[in-house]
Amino acid sequence: MIKKILNYVSVVGVLSLIASPAFAQQAPEHSVFILNSLLFLMAGFLVMFMACGFCMLEAGLVRSKNTTMQLTKNIALFSIAAVGYYVLGYNLMYPLGTWSVDGVFSGVIGVAVMEAVGISADKADDISYATTGSDYFFQLMFCAATASIVSGALAERIKLWPFLLFTLILTAFIYPLQASWKWGGGFLDEMGFLDFAGSTVVHSVGGWAALTGALILGPRIGKYKDGKVVPMPGANLPIATLGVFILWLGWFGFNGGSQLAMGTVGDIADVSRIFANTNAAAAGGAIAALILTQVVYGKVDLTMVLNGALAGLVSITAEPLTPTLGAATIIGAVGGVIVVFSVPLLDKFKIDDVVGAIPVHLIAGIWGTLAVPLTNSDASFGTQIISIIIVGAFTVVASAVVWTVIKATLGIRVSEEDEIAGLDNSELGMDAYPEFSK
Amino acid sequence: MIKKILNYVSVVGVLSLIASPAFAQQAPEHSVFILNSLLFLMAGFLVMFMACGFCMLEAGLVRSKNTTMQLTKNIALFSIAAVGYYVLGYNLMYPLGTWSVDGVFSGVIGVAVMEAVGISADKADDISYATTGSDYFFQLMFCAATASIVSGALAERIKLWPFLLFTLILTAFIYPLQASWKWGGGFLDEMGFLDFAGSTVVHSVGGWAALTGALILGPRIGKYKDGKVVPMPGANLPIATLGVFILWLGWFGFNGGSQLAMGTVGDIADVSRIFANTNAAAAGGAIAALILTQVVYGKVDLTMVLNGALAGLVSITAEPLTPTLGAATIIGAVGGVIVVFSVPLLDKFKIDDVVGAIPVHLIAGIWGTLAVPLTNSDASFGTQIISIIIVGAFTVVASAVVWTVIKATLGIRVSEEDEIAGLDNSELGMDAYPEFSK
Amino acid sequence: MIKKILNYVSVVGVLSLIASPAFAQQAPEHSVFILNSLLFLMAGFLVMFMACGFCMLEAGLVRSKNTTMQLTKNIALFSIAAVGYYVLGYNLMYPLGTWSVDGVFSGVIGVAVMEAVGISADKADDISYATTGSDYFFQLMFCAATASIVSGALAERIKLWPFLLFTLILTAFIYPLQASWKWGGGFLDEMGFLDFAGSTVVHSVGGWAALTGALILGPRIGKYKDGKVVPMPGANLPIATLGVFILWLGWFGFNGGSQLAMGTVGDIADVSRIFANTNAAAAGGAIAALILTQVVYGKVDLTMVLNGALAGLVSITAEPLTPTLGAATIIGAVGGVIVVFSVPLLDKFKIDDVVGAIPVHLIAGIWGTLAVPLTNSDASFGTQIISIIIVGAFTVVASAVVWTVIKATLGIRVSEEDEIAGLDNSELGMDAYPEFSK
Repeated sequence: MIKKILNYVSVVGVLSLIASPAFAQQAPEHSVFILNSLLFLMAGFLVMFMACGFCMLEAGLVRSKNTTMQLTKNIALFSIAAVGYYVLGYNLMYPLGTWSVDGVFSGVIGVAVMEAVGISADKADDISYATTGSDYFFQLMFCAATASIVSGALAERIKLWPFLLFTLILTAFIYPLQASWKWGGGFLDEMGFLDFAGSTVVHSVGGWAALTGALILGPRIGKYKDGKVVPMPGANLPIATLGVFILWLGWFGFNGGSQLAMGTVGDIADVSRIFANTNAAAAGGAIAALILTQVVYGKVDLTMVLNGALAGLVSITAEPLTPTLGAATIIGAVGGVIVVFSVPLLDKFKIDDVVGAIPVHLIAGIWGTLAVPLTNSDASFGTQIISIIIVGAFTVVASAVVWTVIKATLGIRVSEEDEIAGLDNSELGMDAYPEFSK
Repeated sequence: MIKKILNYVSVVGVLSLIASPAFAQQAPEHSVFILNSLLFLMAGFLVMFMACGFCMLEAGLVRSKNTTMQLTKNIALFSIAAVGYYVLGYNLMYPLGTWSVDGVFSGVIGVAVMEAVGISADKADDISYATTGSDYFFQLMFCAATASIVSGALAERIKLWPFLLFTLILTAFIYPLQASWKWGGGFLDEMGFLDFAGSTVVHSVGGWAALTGALILGPRIGKYKDGKVVPMPGANLPIATLGVFILWLGWFGFNGGSQLAMGTVGDIADVSRIFANTNAAAAGGAIAALILTQVVYGKVDLTMVLNGALAGLVSITAEPLTPTLGAATIIGAVGGVIVVFSVPLLDKFKIDDVVGAIPVHLIAGIWGTLAVPLTNSDASFGTQIISIIIVGAFTVVASAVVWTVIKATLGIRVSEEDEIAGLDNSELGMDAYPEFSK
Repeated sequence: MIKKILNYVSVVGVLSLIASPAFAQQAPEHSVFILNSLLFLMAGFLVMFMACGFCMLEAGLVRSKNTTMQLTKNIALFSIAAVGYYVLGYNLMYPLGTWSVDGVFSGVIGVAVMEAVGISADKADDISYATTGSDYFFQLMFCAATASIVSGALAERIKLWPFLLFTLILTAFIYPLQASWKWGGGFLDEMGFLDFAGSTVVHSVGGWAALTGALILGPRIGKYKDGKVVPMPGANLPIATLGVFILWLGWFGFNGGSQLAMGTVGDIADVSRIFANTNAAAAGGAIAALILTQVVYGKVDLTMVLNGALAGLVSITAEPLTPTLGAATIIGAVGGVIVVFSVPLLDKFKIDDVVGAIPVHLIAGIWGTLAVPLTNSDASFGTQIISIIIVGAFTVVASAVVWTVIKATLGIRVSEEDEIAGLDNSELGMDAYPEFSK
């Protein structure tokens, strides 16, 4: 009897608490939901700013006669990614994560749909995760980053519209499909492949697409002459350095946001580790390139230091959580070393990568993915290697098909005269620095 | 028996926890208050950065001989807005929102006052909203944005101090007064006018002030010659593009912060929608200008694409919440179309707008305001149109009076020789690029 | 009797609520912990971006022949700070805060260690504060800012590696040791020294190290000739202005984050005050320099306005919380006045400070520290002055020893021919603007 009363009363007590509107707004799980969504929004705007970082980096590293074109490509690709990911990519990546070995999709393809306006807690899909709107915003920025990687490698010779068509297919189909294999809960995820924020899923995919494009497109006129590599220095190094700092900043969102949660003590502690490790790896990459270019070439090379920092960031992206600060610094430093040695290697094979995107995003991306088992015992080298190969093979094949079809139809390369005159003049009729350049 | 005691003791333990100051600090409504304030701070620093975006955009689009002046104007106007809004604007906008048809103010004008240091929850004004300090910070940045819009249109010919005097009056009086009609709960708000983040209240006001100034100031020497429009290309397109990316970034704060809350599931879901829609609209605007300049002129025009993205952002600002992602993209795309057609239209009327501020902020701002009823059934076309006209008429009249008085007293335009020599040399004696420009 | 039972039972109700896992994640003190950590992460990435701001400011204010070097130094110093602070600095600053008059350390020096991955609340060190990872991230950025201050003053003549060696010692030892006296709970803190975000601890320390370096290094060749000061204008003012806007943005993190908490109503209100006051002080500094250069020189000087804004920011850094908006504006304005008068003063003593770092960070830093008692009655002028002297004396002596040893061993200054040719060409072999500069 007493117990019955007690039970009844406790219900009343709780009820009265719950009945107040303030509490209804703030049941504990609501806080988790709000903070997780906030992480996506905050991390998302940081990753969005990486589009600006890529744009500045590339605009600074091309010659002045191709600068307007590089700016145009960057703002256009970021815009096109927003459409491609909306109309197809997002739903291909997530609800269709049930890609199976027999290659059949399940689910329905449709445009991305967010929560209704003014949704109440009981109507939200999954109160333990985050808003669909913030998740979409965050994931879109990753998709766009993949496209940004491609544009730098193919600069100074690719036509505008064919490049943008490739971007549309990359962001609507190629990136989301392979991303679903890991992040959509697909077969790579089931195999135990670990890629925290996308050394492979984002960076190597951008890198493979760029490499395929660079091979099909060929090097710039005059780049390789009589067995020698002709330097074609970028026109504006402050802008390129600005780009790297912006990318470094954005990477806190890229890696930190990939924790996908910050509403609990454990999650915020993990996000904190990731921020600190991400910075350590970038520093390691920059210092490695700084020392190595001094030792190897007798002079520090700023563009190598910049790419070293980026390679450090790419290297830590597959596993920014488990390393100590010291391990993160070393993982990043190896990325910096990779850049210094692989830039001339690409030149040896006459693969002309204008901004160094392939060493930074592809080769350091592979390294970062392979480094996961070094600090995370849940990962195995075998699975990491197999996954790198599967993603790489798919991206190369898919990109090659698309590039080849575009080449055969629209063409992908500007004419020789246009390339020599510069794309700004020939394709756009607008100088980036009308009063400065010689 | 033991268990019973344990139970009792745990109850006591919990009770003592609840009684502890930590819990007192964290009653549910406190969380809402903290998160709302955090939204204002985060959105506020993003909108603050838009001042940098405007500065870079304008510095990149003027000729090198006027660049130092444009930089000076931008950092000065942002500083002056902080004073104007502090000493008069903020209190004019909010407590004096009770502007009535008979034109009498109520309330007392005084400087903005924030919470006391170390305030306790029971002393805070309105625990369900946000801190006054964060609200002030956020609102100040909107006021400053209005002033930034003006500087671009009038570049390359207006004198420094007269421009700054206008800025002071705009930020202390013109902007806050009309903003109070909507956001201070004034008569436009009561009429049912909807303008979520200020397509009209901020952007069109800046645009009207710029248009009035451009008309009174007249075009640059040599801009319209023998019935032809003489192109005067900007000196540094990477910097201009940087500015647009920064503005794009800042706009997440501009629109997202205008939800004014993120402490509940419904609010964070709405903020998330707004972020995603804002990005979609910018992308739509850029793509529309990209395609349209290709089709109409046969060549993509980067400055149109940049302004297209901005026009897309302005277009979605009046209602970034209710559209779907697809609708947001289309609303933004119409903004991009507007830019491509209205830039030459202004030239036809010999209205010389150096950076395209009038098409972007005024014309796309009107479009965005008119588009609200398309996705939000609470809005009516009639009220939107009437409100646009009232705000426009007030701003044009007030601006015209101020510009005319300044013109008649201090003068607003530099001498012909000074304009030809460039303002950097004649007014400031400092080159922006002393080693580069011809 | 009934009431008694109700009370008891409602307790049981609460208990059952607390027992649910969601609540366990979100006990009230967890929210405080999460929000405090989030403040550090958000403020930390803003302060990180200040490294970009310093880099752009300096790259814009040096001549084009030294720009690549200045970019290299900035990205390198930021990377080296990450290592120096990790291997020694952080632990020197915090657990060793028990520096005593007899100069003996207690505690053990070791690398910084963050929380374990996936930590649960009961394992976290101090649930009432924030994650160690976020604290480390935030504090590292302050350390790096100190190093950034030095690089600008010594530009255009110091060798790369000796500068970087000094940076390592500054960030691993000099900065953290003196910072422990205040922020590690050391003797200056016990004396009652107040320096909220580091006008003295960060800015004056950077300034003293820069001054010592400038004196030992000597002025640039040709800077002081026949008793006259030869202007050596910066090559790229838009980039310099960009740097100032970025620094202004980052300062919200610098000062706001120094509240060290935002999980309660009182803390978020304080952080809000700090944001608004920081902006007001920057505006005050810019406006003071704007008006003063017009009055004194007859022309507005953009570089003075830029440094005026920064001096305003430095001035408010020692106490951004207690002033009203009006007081903050005035404190900042005095900083702006200081810049205008102390830049020529340094030249009178032939102290060649390329970017004005000493007026901005040292002299305005002293002013800001002295201004604390004006608005905060807990501070005394005596203690502030003594603390400024102690920190200054330590930093000057320590820096002088390091600079002198480096000078005697590695050398610190490039050769005369190299300096005249420019460091980009002589030390790095890479032009920043290969197509523009004369």
